[in-house]
Amino acid sequence: MDFKELLEKQSAESWEKYIPTLSIDCVIFSFYENSLQVLILKMRDQDLWGLPGGYVKKTENVDDAAVRILKDRTGTENIYLQQFYTFGNLNRSEKAFEQYHDTIWNKQRFISIGYYALAEHSQVKLVLDEYSSAVQWHSIENLPEFMMDHRKIFDKALTTLREQLNNHPIGYNLLPEKFTMPELQKLYEGILGKRLNRGNFYRKILRYDILTKLEESRKGGAHKAPDLYSFDVEKYNSALKEGLKGNW
Amino acid sequence: MDFKELLEKQSAESWEKYIPTLSIDCVIFSFYENSLQVLILKMRDQDLWGLPGGYVKKTENVDDAAVRILKDRTGTENIYLQQFYTFGNLNRSEKAFEQYHDTIWNKQRFISIGYYALAEHSQVKLVLDEYSSAVQWHSIENLPEFMMDHRKIFDKALTTLREQLNNHPIGYNLLPEKFTMPELQKLYEGILGKRLNRGNFYRKILRYDILTKLEESRKGGAHKAPDLYSFDVEKYNSALKEGLKGNW
Repeated sequence: MDFKELLEKQSAESWEKYIPTLSIDCVIFSFYENSLQVLILKMRDQDLWGLPGGYVKKTENVDDAAVRILKDRTGTENIYLQQFYTFGNLNRSEKAFEQYHDTIWNKQRFISIGYYALAEHSQVKLVLDEYSSAVQWHSIENLPEFMMDHRKIFDKALTTLREQLNNHPIGYNLLPEKFTMPELQKLYEGILGKRLNRGNFYRKILRYDILTKLEESRKGGAHKAPDLYSFDVEKYNSALKEGLKGNW
Repeated sequence: MDFKELLEKQSAESWEKYIPTLSIDCVIFSFYENSLQVLILKMRDQDLWGLPGGYVKKTENVDDAAVRILKDRTGTENIYLQQFYTFGNLNRSEKAFEQYHDTIWNKQRFISIGYYALAEHSQVKLVLDEYSSAVQWHSIENLPEFMMDHRKIFDKALTTLREQLNNHPIGYNLLPEKFTMPELQKLYEGILGKRLNRGNFYRKILRYDILTKLEESRKGGAHKAPDLYSFDVEKYNSALKEGLKGNW
Protein backbone atom coordinates (compact mmCIF):
# COMPACT_ATOMS: atom_id res chain seq x y z
CA MET A 1 0.00 0.00 0.00
CA ASP A 2 1.43 3.41 -0.81
CA PHE A 3 1.94 5.78 2.09
CA LYS A 4 -0.92 8.12 1.20
CA GLU A 5 -3.39 5.23 1.09
CA LEU A 6 -2.05 3.93 4.36
CA LEU A 7 -2.50 7.32 6.06
CA GLU A 8 -6.05 7.65 4.75
CA LYS A 9 -6.97 4.15 5.83
CA GLN A 10 -5.49 4.63 9.29
CA SER A 11 -6.94 8.11 9.79
CA ALA A 12 -10.53 6.91 10.06
CA GLU A 13 -9.48 4.41 12.71
CA SER A 14 -7.31 6.91 14.57
CA TRP A 15 -10.08 9.51 14.88
CA GLU A 16 -12.22 6.76 16.42
CA LYS A 17 -9.62 5.31 18.75
CA TYR A 18 -7.30 8.08 19.97
CA ILE A 19 -7.61 11.39 21.80
CA PRO A 20 -7.24 14.10 19.16
CA THR A 21 -4.54 16.79 19.41
CA LEU A 22 -2.47 14.70 21.78
CA SER A 23 0.63 12.70 20.95
CA ILE A 24 3.56 11.11 22.73
CA ASP A 25 7.18 11.33 21.64
CA CYS A 26 9.86 9.09 23.09
CA VAL A 27 13.55 9.83 23.46
CA ILE A 28 15.01 6.37 23.94
CA PHE A 29 18.57 6.37 25.17
CA SER A 30 20.91 3.43 25.22
CA PHE A 31 24.60 2.93 25.87
CA TYR A 32 26.26 0.99 23.10
CA GLU A 33 29.76 0.70 21.66
CA ASN A 34 31.07 3.07 24.28
CA SER A 35 28.73 5.89 23.39
CA LEU A 36 25.36 7.26 24.44
CA GLN A 37 22.90 6.57 21.65
CA VAL A 38 19.34 7.56 20.81
CA LEU A 39 16.72 5.71 18.80
CA ILE A 40 15.72 7.57 15.63
CA LEU A 41 13.56 6.68 12.68
CA LYS A 42 12.43 7.93 9.34
CA MET A 43 8.79 8.01 8.27
CA ARG A 44 8.15 6.68 4.80
CA ASP A 45 7.36 9.99 3.15
CA GLN A 46 9.78 12.16 5.12
CA ASP A 47 13.35 13.17 4.32
CA LEU A 48 14.21 14.03 7.89
CA TRP A 49 14.71 11.77 10.88
CA GLY A 50 12.44 11.82 13.88
CA LEU A 51 11.74 10.34 17.29
CA PRO A 52 9.42 7.36 17.75
CA GLY A 53 5.97 8.30 18.96
CA GLY A 54 2.30 7.51 19.04
CA TYR A 55 -1.08 8.45 20.43
CA VAL A 56 -3.20 7.97 23.54
CA LYS A 57 -6.29 5.76 23.36
CA LYS A 58 -9.51 7.27 24.65
CA THR A 59 -9.68 4.42 27.15
CA GLU A 60 -6.06 4.49 28.32
CA ASN A 61 -3.91 6.26 30.92
CA VAL A 62 -1.27 8.48 29.32
CA ASP A 63 1.56 6.63 31.08
CA ASP A 64 0.19 3.30 29.83
CA ALA A 65 0.14 4.66 26.29
CA ALA A 66 3.83 5.51 26.60
CA VAL A 67 4.62 1.97 27.78
CA ARG A 68 2.62 0.51 24.89
CA ILE A 69 4.30 2.74 22.29
CA LEU A 70 7.72 1.84 23.63
CA LYS A 71 6.94 -1.85 23.66
CA ASP A 72 5.67 -1.78 20.09
CA ARG A 73 8.89 -0.14 18.98
CA THR A 74 11.48 -1.95 21.09
CA GLY A 75 9.90 -5.32 21.80
CA THR A 76 10.24 -4.89 25.56
CA GLU A 77 8.46 -3.38 28.53
CA ASN A 78 11.55 -3.71 30.63
CA ILE A 79 12.59 -0.10 30.21
CA TYR A 80 12.94 2.80 32.63
CA LEU A 81 10.49 5.39 31.40
CA GLN A 82 9.88 8.90 32.57
CA GLN A 83 7.80 11.79 31.37
CA PHE A 84 9.85 14.98 31.11
CA TYR A 85 8.02 17.76 29.26
CA THR A 86 4.99 18.57 27.13
CA PHE A 87 5.51 20.47 23.89
CA GLY A 88 2.59 22.65 22.94
CA ASN A 89 3.54 25.40 20.53
CA LEU A 90 1.28 26.20 17.61
CA ASN A 91 2.52 24.85 14.28
CA ARG A 92 5.05 22.51 15.85
CA SER A 93 3.78 19.52 13.88
CA GLU A 94 1.28 20.60 11.23
CA LYS A 95 3.73 21.35 8.44
CA ALA A 96 5.19 17.87 8.14
CA PHE A 97 1.96 16.61 6.56
CA GLU A 98 0.86 19.66 4.61
CA GLN A 99 0.77 17.81 1.28
CA TYR A 100 -2.05 15.60 2.57
CA HIS A 101 -5.76 16.22 2.88
CA ASP A 102 -6.97 18.17 5.93
CA THR A 103 -8.89 15.20 7.27
CA ILE A 104 -5.70 13.18 7.71
CA TRP A 105 -5.17 12.42 11.41
CA ASN A 106 -1.47 13.27 11.30
CA LYS A 107 -2.11 16.78 9.98
CA GLN A 108 -3.74 18.06 13.17
CA ARG A 109 -2.18 20.33 15.69
CA PHE A 110 -0.52 17.96 18.16
CA ILE A 111 0.50 18.74 21.69
CA SER A 112 3.12 16.15 22.47
CA ILE A 113 4.03 14.66 25.82
CA GLY A 114 7.73 13.78 25.91
CA TYR A 115 8.98 10.65 27.67
CA TYR A 116 12.57 9.64 27.96
CA ALA A 117 13.48 5.99 28.22
CA LEU A 118 16.66 4.28 29.35
CA ALA A 119 17.15 0.97 27.59
CA GLU A 120 19.77 -1.62 28.36
CA HIS A 121 21.00 -2.31 24.87
CA SER A 122 20.80 -6.10 24.83
CA GLN A 123 17.09 -6.00 25.83
CA VAL A 124 15.94 -4.13 22.75
CA LYS A 125 14.80 -5.58 19.42
CA LEU A 126 14.01 -2.69 17.11
CA VAL A 127 10.74 -2.95 15.21
CA LEU A 128 10.29 -1.27 11.83
CA ASP A 129 6.56 -0.65 11.46
CA GLU A 130 4.64 -0.01 8.25
CA TYR A 131 4.92 3.80 8.62
CA SER A 132 8.71 3.86 8.79
CA SER A 133 11.42 3.34 6.22
CA ALA A 134 14.27 3.16 8.75
CA VAL A 135 14.87 2.76 12.45
CA GLN A 136 18.27 2.81 14.12
CA TRP A 137 20.44 3.74 17.06
CA HIS A 138 22.54 6.86 16.54
CA SER A 139 25.25 8.36 18.69
CA ILE A 140 23.98 11.57 20.30
CA GLU A 141 26.94 13.31 18.72
CA ASN A 142 26.48 14.40 15.10
CA LEU A 143 22.78 13.68 14.99
CA PRO A 144 21.16 14.17 11.57
CA GLU A 145 18.59 16.92 11.00
CA PHE A 146 15.25 16.13 12.67
CA MET A 147 11.67 16.76 11.51
CA MET A 148 9.25 19.11 13.30
CA ASP A 149 10.57 20.18 16.73
CA HIS A 150 12.09 16.79 17.46
CA ARG A 151 15.56 18.26 17.93
CA LYS A 152 14.15 20.51 20.65
CA ILE A 153 12.47 17.49 22.27
CA PHE A 154 15.73 15.55 22.18
CA ASP A 155 17.69 18.48 23.66
CA LYS A 156 15.20 18.89 26.49
CA ALA A 157 15.41 15.16 27.26
CA LEU A 158 19.18 15.31 27.45
CA THR A 159 19.08 18.41 29.68
CA THR A 160 16.64 16.60 31.96
CA LEU A 161 18.92 13.56 32.12
CA ARG A 162 21.78 15.87 33.07
CA GLU A 163 19.77 17.55 35.83
CA GLN A 164 18.56 14.21 37.18
CA LEU A 165 21.89 12.41 37.05
CA ASN A 166 22.38 12.78 40.81
CA ASN A 167 18.84 11.79 41.78
CA HIS A 168 17.67 9.12 39.34
CA PRO A 169 19.06 5.63 38.60
CA ILE A 170 20.29 6.65 35.16
CA GLY A 171 23.57 4.74 35.11
CA TYR A 172 21.91 1.64 36.47
CA ASN A 173 19.32 1.56 33.70
CA LEU A 174 21.66 2.29 30.80
CA LEU A 175 24.53 -0.02 31.59
CA PRO A 176 24.60 -3.82 31.47
CA GLU A 177 24.73 -5.53 34.84
CA LYS A 178 28.53 -5.70 34.72
CA PHE A 179 30.54 -2.81 33.35
CA THR A 180 34.00 -1.34 33.45
CA MET A 181 35.01 1.99 34.93
CA PRO A 182 35.88 3.46 31.49
CA GLU A 183 32.37 2.54 30.31
CA LEU A 184 30.78 4.27 33.27
CA GLN A 185 32.93 7.33 32.64
CA LYS A 186 31.99 7.38 28.92
CA LEU A 187 28.33 7.27 29.89
CA TYR A 188 28.71 10.20 32.26
CA GLU A 189 30.64 12.13 29.64
CA GLY A 190 27.88 11.51 27.10
CA ILE A 191 25.17 12.75 29.42
CA LEU A 192 27.16 15.74 30.66
CA GLY A 193 28.43 16.63 27.20
CA LYS A 194 32.01 17.08 28.35
CA ARG A 195 35.22 15.14 28.93
CA LEU A 196 36.00 14.26 32.53
CA ASN A 197 39.36 13.78 34.17
CA ARG A 198 39.86 10.05 34.71
CA GLY A 199 41.43 10.27 38.14
CA ASN A 200 38.83 12.69 39.50
CA PHE A 201 35.98 10.63 38.11
CA TYR A 202 37.24 7.36 39.63
CA ARG A 203 37.88 8.97 42.99
CA LYS A 204 34.46 10.59 43.10
CA ILE A 205 32.44 7.62 41.98
CA LEU A 206 34.24 5.32 44.40
CA ARG A 207 33.74 7.77 47.26
CA TYR A 208 29.96 7.42 46.81
CA ASP A 209 30.32 3.76 47.74
CA ILE A 210 27.60 2.67 45.30
CA LEU A 211 29.64 0.18 43.23
CA THR A 212 30.67 -3.39 43.91
CA LYS A 213 33.96 -4.49 42.41
CA LEU A 214 33.46 -7.99 41.01
CA GLU A 215 35.84 -10.91 41.32
CA GLU A 216 35.96 -11.31 37.55
CA SER A 217 37.38 -9.11 34.79
CA ARG A 218 36.44 -8.67 31.14
CA LYS A 219 37.93 -11.26 28.81
CA GLY A 220 39.12 -10.81 25.28
CA GLY A 221 40.84 -7.43 24.80
CA ALA A 222 44.45 -7.04 23.74
CA HIS A 223 45.27 -5.11 26.91
CA LYS A 224 45.13 -6.13 30.51
CA ALA A 225 41.55 -7.22 31.20
CA PRO A 226 39.72 -4.31 32.90
CA ASP A 227 38.00 -4.77 36.25
CA LEU A 228 34.27 -5.24 36.23
CA TYR A 229 31.84 -3.45 38.52
CA SER A 230 28.15 -3.56 39.23
CA PHE A 231 25.89 -1.23 41.15
CA ASP A 232 25.19 -2.03 44.80
CA VAL A 233 21.49 -1.43 44.29
CA GLU A 234 20.62 -0.83 47.90
CA LYS A 235 23.40 1.70 48.52
CA TYR A 236 22.85 3.27 45.11
CA ASN A 237 19.14 3.86 45.74
CA SER A 238 19.69 5.29 49.17
CA ALA A 239 22.45 7.59 47.82
CA LEU A 240 20.14 8.80 45.04
CA LYS A 241 17.41 9.52 47.53
CA GLU A 242 19.73 11.93 49.31
CA GLY A 243 21.16 13.03 45.94
CA LEU A 244 24.73 12.35 44.87
CA LYS A 245 26.64 15.41 45.98
CA GLY A 246 28.82 17.64 43.93
CA ASN A 247 29.53 18.37 40.32
CA TRP A 248 31.48 16.33 37.83
CA MET B 1 -26.85 33.23 37.60
CA ASP B 2 -26.83 29.89 39.38
CA PHE B 3 -23.80 27.68 38.83
CA LYS B 4 -25.54 25.12 36.63
CA GLU B 5 -26.78 27.84 34.28
CA LEU B 6 -23.33 29.36 34.20
CA LEU B 7 -21.69 26.03 33.29
CA GLU B 8 -24.22 25.41 30.54
CA LYS B 9 -23.81 28.89 29.10
CA GLN B 10 -20.02 28.67 29.17
CA SER B 11 -19.87 25.13 27.80
CA ALA B 12 -21.04 26.08 24.33
CA GLU B 13 -18.38 28.76 24.17
CA SER B 14 -15.67 26.50 25.60
CA TRP B 15 -16.25 23.75 23.02
CA GLU B 16 -15.82 26.42 20.34
CA LYS B 17 -12.79 28.14 21.80
CA TYR B 18 -10.60 25.61 23.60
CA ILE B 19 -8.80 22.38 22.76
CA PRO B 20 -10.92 19.57 24.23
CA THR B 21 -9.48 17.08 26.75
CA LEU B 22 -6.65 19.43 27.67
CA SER B 23 -6.40 21.59 30.76
CA ILE B 24 -3.76 23.46 32.73
CA ASP B 25 -3.39 23.43 36.50
CA CYS B 26 -1.19 25.90 38.32
CA VAL B 27 0.59 25.44 41.63
CA ILE B 28 1.34 29.01 42.63
CA PHE B 29 3.80 29.32 45.47
CA SER B 30 4.55 32.42 47.48
CA PHE B 31 6.51 33.19 50.61
CA TYR B 32 4.44 35.09 53.10
CA GLU B 33 4.40 35.56 56.88
CA ASN B 34 7.48 33.41 57.21
CA SER B 35 5.97 30.41 55.50
CA LEU B 36 5.76 28.84 52.05
CA GLN B 37 2.21 29.22 50.79
CA VAL B 38 0.16 27.96 47.87
CA LEU B 39 -2.81 29.53 46.14
CA ILE B 40 -5.98 27.46 46.51
CA LEU B 41 -9.59 28.06 45.60
CA LYS B 42 -13.02 26.58 45.87
CA MET B 43 -15.36 26.20 42.91
CA ARG B 44 -18.90 27.33 43.58
CA ASP B 45 -20.48 23.89 43.62
CA GLN B 46 -17.61 21.98 45.21
CA ASP B 47 -16.93 21.19 48.85
CA LEU B 48 -13.24 20.55 48.33
CA TRP B 49 -10.46 22.97 47.56
CA GLY B 50 -8.51 22.92 44.32
CA LEU B 51 -5.76 24.52 42.31
CA PRO B 52 -6.40 27.34 39.86
CA GLY B 53 -6.51 26.24 36.26
CA GLY B 54 -7.89 26.79 32.80
CA TYR B 55 -7.81 25.68 29.19
CA VAL B 56 -5.76 26.16 26.04
CA LYS B 57 -7.23 28.14 23.14
CA LYS B 58 -7.16 26.47 19.75
CA THR B 59 -5.10 29.40 18.51
CA GLU B 60 -2.66 29.63 21.41
CA ASN B 61 0.66 28.15 22.48
CA VAL B 62 0.33 26.06 25.63
CA ASP B 63 2.89 28.18 27.50
CA ASP B 64 1.00 31.34 26.56
CA ALA B 65 -2.19 29.81 27.92
CA ALA B 66 -0.45 29.23 31.25
CA VAL B 67 0.68 32.87 31.37
CA ARG B 68 -2.85 34.06 30.55
CA ILE B 69 -4.46 31.84 33.20
CA LEU B 70 -1.99 33.01 35.80
CA LYS B 71 -2.51 36.65 34.92
CA ASP B 72 -6.29 36.32 35.10
CA ARG B 73 -5.99 34.84 38.58
CA THR B 74 -3.19 36.93 40.09
CA GLY B 75 -3.37 40.21 38.18
CA THR B 76 0.28 39.98 37.12
CA GLU B 77 2.45 38.50 34.39
CA ASN B 78 5.52 39.14 36.45
CA ILE B 79 5.77 35.57 37.75
CA TYR B 80 8.34 32.83 37.27
CA LEU B 81 6.46 30.04 35.59
CA GLN B 82 7.55 26.55 34.73
CA GLN B 83 5.85 23.47 33.40
CA PHE B 84 6.63 20.43 35.52
CA TYR B 85 4.42 17.45 34.67
CA THR B 86 1.36 16.33 32.71
CA PHE B 87 -1.30 14.31 34.51
CA GLY B 88 -3.13 11.91 32.26
CA ASN B 89 -4.81 9.11 34.19
CA LEU B 90 -8.31 8.03 33.25
CA ASN B 91 -11.01 9.30 35.61
CA ARG B 92 -8.76 11.87 37.22
CA SER B 93 -11.27 14.67 36.66
CA GLU B 94 -14.57 13.31 35.41
CA LYS B 95 -16.19 12.59 38.75
CA ALA B 96 -16.15 16.14 40.07
CA PHE B 97 -18.91 17.11 37.64
CA GLU B 98 -20.91 13.90 37.49
CA GLN B 99 -24.16 15.57 38.59
CA TYR B 100 -24.18 17.64 35.39
CA HIS B 101 -25.24 16.78 31.87
CA ASP B 102 -22.75 14.90 29.69
CA THR B 103 -22.44 17.80 27.27
CA ILE B 104 -20.97 20.06 29.97
CA TRP B 105 -17.41 21.03 29.02
CA ASN B 106 -16.07 20.43 32.51
CA LYS B 107 -17.29 16.83 32.58
CA GLN B 108 -14.86 15.59 29.91
CA ARG B 109 -11.78 13.56 30.52
CA PHE B 110 -9.04 16.14 31.00
CA ILE B 111 -5.34 15.60 30.64
CA SER B 112 -3.82 18.39 32.64
CA ILE B 113 -0.48 20.10 32.15
CA GLY B 114 0.93 21.24 35.48
CA TYR B 115 2.82 24.51 35.84
CA TYR B 116 4.38 25.79 39.00
CA ALA B 117 4.70 29.49 39.58
CA LEU B 118 6.81 31.47 42.02
CA ALA B 119 5.15 34.71 42.98
CA GLU B 120 6.67 37.51 44.99
CA HIS B 121 3.86 38.11 47.42
CA SER B 122 3.46 41.86 47.08
CA GLN B 123 3.01 41.56 43.29
CA VAL B 124 -0.14 39.48 43.48
CA LYS B 125 -3.73 40.69 43.62
CA LEU B 126 -5.98 37.64 43.90
CA VAL B 127 -8.98 37.58 41.58
CA LEU B 128 -12.15 35.71 42.53
CA ASP B 129 -13.86 34.83 39.27
CA GLU B 130 -17.50 33.91 38.73
CA TYR B 131 -16.78 30.16 39.01
CA SER B 132 -15.20 30.36 42.46
CA SER B 133 -16.59 30.94 45.90
CA ALA B 134 -13.20 31.43 47.60
CA VAL B 135 -9.58 32.05 46.70
CA GLN B 136 -6.76 32.31 49.23
CA TRP B 137 -3.16 31.65 50.15
CA HIS B 138 -2.64 28.68 52.42
CA SER B 139 0.48 27.46 54.18
CA ILE B 140 1.73 24.26 52.54
CA GLU B 141 1.50 22.66 55.95
CA ASN B 142 -1.94 21.36 56.95
CA LEU B 143 -3.50 21.82 53.54
CA PRO B 144 -7.23 21.05 53.35
CA GLU B 145 -8.51 18.11 51.32
CA PHE B 146 -8.30 18.76 47.58
CA MET B 147 -10.67 17.84 44.75
CA MET B 148 -9.76 15.41 41.93
CA ASP B 149 -6.03 14.59 41.89
CA HIS B 150 -5.01 18.12 42.87
CA ARG B 151 -3.17 16.91 45.95
CA LYS B 152 -1.03 14.72 43.73
CA ILE B 153 -0.38 17.68 41.42
CA PHE B 154 0.64 19.83 44.38
CA ASP B 155 2.95 17.11 45.76
CA LYS B 156 4.64 16.69 42.40
CA ALA B 157 5.18 20.45 42.13
CA LEU B 158 6.78 20.56 45.57
CA THR B 159 9.02 17.57 44.76
CA THR B 160 10.08 19.32 41.56
CA LEU B 161 10.88 22.52 43.46
CA ARG B 162 13.00 20.46 45.84
CA GLU B 163 14.90 18.79 43.02
CA GLN B 164 15.45 22.10 41.24
CA LEU B 165 16.47 24.12 44.29
CA ASN B 166 20.15 23.97 43.34
CA ASN B 167 19.65 24.76 39.64
CA HIS B 168 16.76 27.21 39.38
CA PRO B 169 16.35 30.74 40.80
CA ILE B 170 13.72 29.65 43.28
CA GLY B 171 14.78 31.76 46.24
CA TYR B 172 15.17 34.82 44.06
CA ASN B 173 11.64 34.58 42.72
CA LEU B 174 9.90 33.88 46.00
CA LEU B 175 11.53 36.41 48.26
CA PRO B 176 11.19 40.19 48.19
CA GLU B 177 14.23 42.09 46.96
CA LYS B 178 15.53 42.50 50.51
CA PHE B 179 15.24 39.69 53.02
CA THR B 180 16.72 38.46 56.27
CA MET B 181 18.70 35.28 56.77
CA PRO B 182 15.97 33.71 58.96
CA GLU B 183 13.49 34.33 56.10
CA LEU B 184 15.76 32.62 53.59
CA GLN B 185 16.19 29.70 55.95
CA LYS B 186 12.42 29.41 56.50
CA LEU B 187 11.93 29.31 52.74
CA TYR B 188 14.47 26.54 52.30
CA GLU B 189 12.91 24.63 55.18
CA GLY B 190 9.48 24.93 53.58
CA ILE B 191 10.69 23.62 50.24
CA LEU B 192 12.79 20.83 51.74
CA GLY B 193 10.13 19.88 54.26
CA LYS B 194 12.59 19.73 57.15
CA ARG B 195 14.21 21.88 59.81
CA LEU B 196 17.76 23.00 59.13
CA ASN B 197 20.50 23.78 61.57
CA ARG B 198 20.91 27.57 61.69
CA GLY B 199 24.70 27.62 61.83
CA ASN B 200 25.16 25.12 59.02
CA PHE B 201 22.65 26.89 56.83
CA TYR B 202 24.28 30.32 57.27
CA ARG B 203 27.75 28.93 56.64
CA LYS B 204 26.68 27.10 53.52
CA ILE B 205 24.66 29.85 51.95
CA LEU B 206 27.41 32.40 52.61
CA ARG B 207 30.05 30.08 51.17
CA TYR B 208 28.20 30.12 47.83
CA ASP B 209 28.91 33.84 47.65
CA ILE B 210 25.56 34.62 46.02
CA LEU B 211 24.23 37.12 48.57
CA THR B 212 24.99 40.80 49.11
CA LYS B 213 24.77 42.05 52.67
CA LEU B 214 23.03 45.42 52.57
CA GLU B 215 24.02 48.52 54.51
CA GLU B 216 20.55 48.73 56.03
CA SER B 217 18.70 46.51 58.52
CA ARG B 218 15.00 45.82 59.05
CA LYS B 219 13.22 48.40 61.20
CA GLY B 220 10.44 47.82 63.66
CA GLY B 221 10.88 44.57 65.59
CA ALA B 222 11.31 44.38 69.35
CA HIS B 223 14.69 42.70 69.00
CA LYS B 224 17.90 43.87 67.43
CA ALA B 225 17.10 44.75 63.82
CA PRO B 226 18.17 41.79 61.63
CA ASP B 227 20.58 42.28 58.74
CA LEU B 228 19.12 42.51 55.28
CA TYR B 229 20.46 40.69 52.24
CA SER B 230 19.71 40.58 48.55
CA PHE B 231 20.80 38.19 45.83
CA ASP B 232 23.84 39.11 43.78
CA VAL B 233 22.03 38.24 40.57
CA GLU B 234 25.10 37.76 38.41
CA LYS B 235 26.88 35.47 40.87
CA TYR B 236 23.64 33.68 41.72
CA ASN B 237 22.86 32.89 38.09
CA SER B 238 26.33 31.67 37.35
CA ALA B 239 26.30 29.50 40.50
CA LEU B 240 22.94 28.00 39.49
CA LYS B 241 24.26 27.22 36.03
CA GLU B 242 26.96 25.06 37.62
CA GLY B 243 24.47 23.90 40.26
CA LEU B 244 24.77 24.76 43.94
CA LYS B 245 26.73 21.88 45.41
CA GLY B 246 25.81 19.71 48.29
CA ASN B 247 22.80 18.87 50.35
CA TRP B 248 21.07 20.89 53.03
